[in-house]
Amino acid sequence: MRIMGIDPGTNITGVGIIEVDARGEPDLCHYGCIRTSRSAKRPVRLQQIYRELADIIGRFQPDAIALEDIFYSDNIKTAIVMGEARGVTLLAAVNTGVEPAEYSPREVKLAVVGRGNASKDQVQFMVRQILGLREEIKPADAADALAVALCHFNRIRQEIRRSK
Amino acid sequence: MRIMGIDPGTNITGVGIIEVDARGEPDLCHYGCIRTSRSAKRPVRLQQIYRELADIIGRFQPDAIALEDIFYSDNIKTAIVMGEARGVTLLAAVNTGVEPAEYSPREVKLAVVGRGNASKDQVQFMVRQILGLREEIKPADAADALAVALCHFNRIRQEIRRSK
Repeated sequence: MRIMGIDPGTNITGVGIIEVDARGEPDLCHYGCIRTSRSAKRPVRLQQIYRELADIIGRFQPDAIALEDIFYSDNIKTAIVMGEARGVTLLAAVNTGVEPAEYSPREVKLAVVGRGNASKDQVQFMVRQILGLREEIKPADAADALAVALCHFNRIRQEIRRSK
Repeated sequence: MRIMGIDPGTNITGVGIIEVDARGEPDLCHYGCIRTSRSAKRPVRLQQIYRELADIIGRFQPDAIALEDIFYSDNIKTAIVMGEARGVTLLAAVNTGVEPAEYSPREVKLAVVGRGNASKDQVQFMVRQILGLREEIKPADAADALAVALCHFNRIRQEIRRSK
């Protein structure tokens, strides 16, 4: 089973894909990011995010897609721009036939670090531990995307255990 | 020349299309709205908005598309959800080869009513006056969409006059 996490943003959209191996443990499959040009107009940047996400989804064929349901922001303008990137991300998922799952930042941190108020560094550290990665995951958006994928994996594993 | 205005929203997306006639005056071409089911999940609703907008754009082939660049909201959550609908709207425009123009609510009201702080009712009244419509434009989102289209028409007319 392949799970894709996405951390959408107009400047950088992080993506992370994990593969659940035969023992039921998560392995790294792919991580990276989509960077858009700051000089490009917003609609064109959204188009780039949508196209590259659709391309990655087509290439890796994830069985599930998860992202954070971020409902906080410093200000309204940032929130709307953030929402625009989320909109095309959700569309890219649903247009490829995968209904995206959404988790709060607290749920993601709780699943990966065990503490709902964990720092970004702690999330990065634990994602590397869980997936056995020596190198730092760059950019941080990709580590966040892998964390969401691991959160979804955790949820699925819990559901399987409960149903046994 | 055909100009399409869009007022994006997760529940109701208003659309309004005007046609500039041989005398250079705006006539009504089409107005309506896309309603999504409140019981459907957000990604599915975004997909519906995107698909129906792409369908309307394909059917009416507007030369220009305009929407309000709303950067205010009562709260962050509403702003992000609003941004999601805007994101797929901008994508529908740019994916059909039309780069969307954006106007502030103040610019739209100024162009249609002549006052930047005009009420919704005044906008509705003036849109009907300009387009010679007897009936009330329902829903209000369609009237807002027509107002944005008229605002864009106004901008184009000013530019043509300036270049003469």
